[in-house]
Amino acid sequence: MDDRFSALGELAVHGANVQPGQVVALSASVGQEELARAVAEAAYRRGARFVDVVYYDPLLKRARIAYADPATLDYVPPWYVERLMTLAEHGDARIALAGVVEPLALEGLDPVLLGRDQLPRLRELSEVIDERATNWTMVPCPNRAWARLVFPGVDEEIAYERLWRELWHVLRLDEIDPKVAWHRRIESLAESARALTERDFDSLELRGPGTELTIGLLPGSRWGSGDLETKSGIRHLPNLPTEEVFTTPDPRRTHGHVASTKPLVLADGLIVRDLRVRFDHGRAVEVEADHNGEALKLKTELDEGAARLGEVALVDGRGRIGPLGTVFYETLLDENAASHIALGNGVASVLGTGGEELMNRSQIHIDFMIGSLELDVVGLTRTGDRVPVLSGGDWRI
Amino acid sequence: MDDRFSALGELAVHGANVQPGQVVALSASVGQEELARAVAEAAYRRGARFVDVVYYDPLLKRARIAYADPATLDYVPPWYVERLMTLAEHGDARIALAGVVEPLALEGLDPVLLGRDQLPRLRELSEVIDERATNWTMVPCPNRAWARLVFPGVDEEIAYERLWRELWHVLRLDEIDPKVAWHRRIESLAESARALTERDFDSLELRGPGTELTIGLLPGSRWGSGDLETKSGIRHLPNLPTEEVFTTPDPRRTHGHVASTKPLVLADGLIVRDLRVRFDHGRAVEVEADHNGEALKLKTELDEGAARLGEVALVDGRGRIGPLGTVFYETLLDENAASHIALGNGVASVLGTGGEELMNRSQIHIDFMIGSLELDVVGLTRTGDRVPVLSGGDWRI
Repeated sequence: MDDRFSALGELAVHGANVQPGQVVALSASVGQEELARAVAEAAYRRGARFVDVVYYDPLLKRARIAYADPATLDYVPPWYVERLMTLAEHGDARIALAGVVEPLALEGLDPVLLGRDQLPRLRELSEVIDERATNWTMVPCPNRAWARLVFPGVDEEIAYERLWRELWHVLRLDEIDPKVAWHRRIESLAESARALTERDFDSLELRGPGTELTIGLLPGSRWGSGDLETKSGIRHLPNLPTEEVFTTPDPRRTHGHVASTKPLVLADGLIVRDLRVRFDHGRAVEVEADHNGEALKLKTELDEGAARLGEVALVDGRGRIGPLGTVFYETLLDENAASHIALGNGVASVLGTGGEELMNRSQIHIDFMIGSLELDVVGLTRTGDRVPVLSGGDWRI
Repeated sequence: MDDRFSALGELAVHGANVQPGQVVALSASVGQEELARAVAEAAYRRGARFVDVVYYDPLLKRARIAYADPATLDYVPPWYVERLMTLAEHGDARIALAGVVEPLALEGLDPVLLGRDQLPRLRELSEVIDERATNWTMVPCPNRAWARLVFPGVDEEIAYERLWRELWHVLRLDEIDPKVAWHRRIESLAESARALTERDFDSLELRGPGTELTIGLLPGSRWGSGDLETKSGIRHLPNLPTEEVFTTPDPRRTHGHVASTKPLVLADGLIVRDLRVRFDHGRAVEVEADHNGEALKLKTELDEGAARLGEVALVDGRGRIGPLGTVFYETLLDENAASHIALGNGVASVLGTGGEELMNRSQIHIDFMIGSLELDVVGLTRTGDRVPVLSGGDWRI
């Protein structure tokens, strides 16, 4: 086995903080077997009771959308839900491998039909995350097909090695002790989050090329960063890498328009490019893009919360992803390159008293990138003062 | 996609006789994705509600046996059982892909530890089969790794094409209409089965090199062949290819000794060669082999029925597998090359009145091949007459 997968597998079980006796639910895709096995080995060495790997195959999803009776596309086998609910009830661990495996798997399919099939993400997952029932993490898995997408026109082997090198760097696996390096980075993100929380802004103003947006915040909400704790007290790092600080905004108070600064991958082969969204009283009332805007628009119609914001996240220029200038076509990485907002479900862990009733709820949570070095973020205090927050990629608070 | 997979996928859904609205549980292994997708496409075209593919990864099993706490090896996630039971309750379809994907996956592991992990086969499956709850089939899936095992020393691409050619032939895909060809072959097997059933033998005597065995039969038991019917009346072909007629013997009345005529694959990398078993009053009291006899012996100790016979099957010389002379290291094929017996669970579908109480029951069902052109089979009637049944590969009844 490629030793790099072992190191990445070790980092994944560290991120999820797998406990002895836990079942580990591992979501992987076909084409990610090497990392899945490395994660399993590392989890068993830590005393996991069982590592339950589910290999998702995007070409099976394609066969379903293309040939199944459209009336059946919302069917989900009951044992899928049973599995997730049992994991949540037992307080087990979850690890997901990110990364593209079949860049064109879903290309050319009818977005209306695609929208009806929620798999592989279960609707109930948002609830499990909100309840902080499981300790979990998500890490990227390098893959040759993904490397070809990220570095087109480059020899496959060279592209694959380059992808590994960039991921190795952003995962801080090039540090003498990656766990310590992550501890430090997460402490520094936590400091920024604390500074933002202390300001208790009423709203944020974001201005940059194509973007003029005001986002109302919820009173008492905190800003969160890279670590979480389950309700039973297991600290974990849900995203590796992570470079963001984030909060859950007021779903009723977003106004203005934004332009995306990076492509958004809705599903394999479904890349939304040059997205423009206009918000009015919190709702995305116009959703347009040069490519696949319709597919995203359909997502925003799935439920009442799908057209409203669940997250606003700020990323400074000191993270490791932004400076690479690479578009990874993978939200886990691209969202940590630049400031972003997310349509759909909020992040319950940052809510203050009473926030639960106000937080946006939806079965979707779709991040898209609006940040760049040209983005200026200003905080508006409850007394009407304007406080610079982020400009030129640097914190101003 | 390789068109051959489409043809094989079509044959699989024909074998399982997938009905509109059914969920199809598809058991595949990593490395069998192409056929899994072809089966899914064919099943959706027939109106399947959902095709639930589970990709088994033998290297994940290896990681578990090698690194997990031995005390946890009998753990099975409850949603695995829930899935099977829901399929059975709803009368859904099951399709399994056979064939080796990682010939050495489990090589060198402690057979005692291996024996504790029942996955991927669930203990409850025997019960679901006995109840005729689901319509199902099993077909082989060609694979380069498997081709290397079957044709060692041959260039991989040539070996792979040869494996395809041989499987294409034994699956009767080289016939103008494979479905009609199977219908005819199954009719001819059914005729042999009827002839044997009519004789109502008290027992069989099998004699050949290394084999001198008497197998007592159950009064009223029928001989079965390639097709089955679910309790709701869906006819299906559980094994493709199939060349055998079989019955469930009396678990108390096997005496003598047998020598295997082909290797037996217990699990990837666990090949039992030159097996010799001695039976006394129905029990396998001596289990020896030149390779991995201990692993099989452990299986026979799993429960009370694991050391007794659940099946005796006769294969004539007119089948398509035997004449190839190929050892496939895959029971689905090798068992249809030659007469065989199986340790463990009986086949409930052939039982006569009262047979249910006498039939052997076990969580295992392990076929091993004892037939050859040199095997003579004689039937003993209840009045003590000796009737030739099979010799030189030809039926004598």
